[in-house]
Amino acid sequence: MPEIRKEIRKLNIPAAFDRVAEPWSPHIAAHVNGQEVRIAKLLGSFDWHRHDGVDELFFVIKGEFTMRFRDREIAMGEGDMIVVPANVDHMPVADEECWVMAVESAGTRNTGEKITERTKTDLPVL
Amino acid sequence: MPEIRKEIRKLNIPAAFDRVAEPWSPHIAAHVNGQEVRIAKLLGSFDWHRHDGVDELFFVIKGEFTMRFRDREIAMGEGDMIVVPANVDHMPVADEECWVMAVESAGTRNTGEKITERTKTDLPVL
Repeated sequence: MPEIRKEIRKLNIPAAFDRVAEPWSPHIAAHVNGQEVRIAKLLGSFDWHRHDGVDELFFVIKGEFTMRFRDREIAMGEGDMIVVPANVDHMPVADEECWVMAVESAGTRNTGEKITERTKTDLPVL
Repeated sequence: MPEIRKEIRKLNIPAAFDRVAEPWSPHIAAHVNGQEVRIAKLLGSFDWHRHDGVDELFFVIKGEFTMRFRDREIAMGEGDMIVVPANVDHMPVADEECWVMAVESAGTRNTGEKITERTKTDLPVL
């Protein structure tokens, strides 16, 4: 286990959003048992994608957004949590800026099975 | 993967605390990639314990508490997150009721390496 794991530090999640400049740019807030806790601002429509073999949890810190699935959509408000199961197509849409926390396996590509101009690698660590 | 994983449901985390009657009684809010997201109310002092091989993430939903370690303590307020690394002794203490979310590997014993009268098994699922 790398030594950095032994650094115990506190991060205030709402305050950390000040360091997230752009929408759709996930930043890493924490690592836990091979999972990454990420925060991101959502604004507008993302692209349809899925994460092969990886569940993705969303928790709304501030604002609201809609999670679209192929057969339904779920309106998400502050304090709401959902888990998008592995291999399920989804598309988040936010009419106004929304702050979310996500939990997914470390290294999961934000754009899922596609590589696009919105694909982010080397995510900033907060 | 069990079929239940395909149920996509929304859970409002602050509202879910209404269904948590007792302090130190973790309830399962979600599963994600072999991890459990749990919520619990803290009040008073818990016991020193550690989780062998399992990191434990804490995120404060409401209130404040202190995470004691053998060599320091960290004051946690609303919106604060820390990860207690695997195998590190810790003891949460809350002077007033505090609501936390935790992320840890599924089945992790709440009292760590000890079995006590505070050990909870078959955690309720919200």
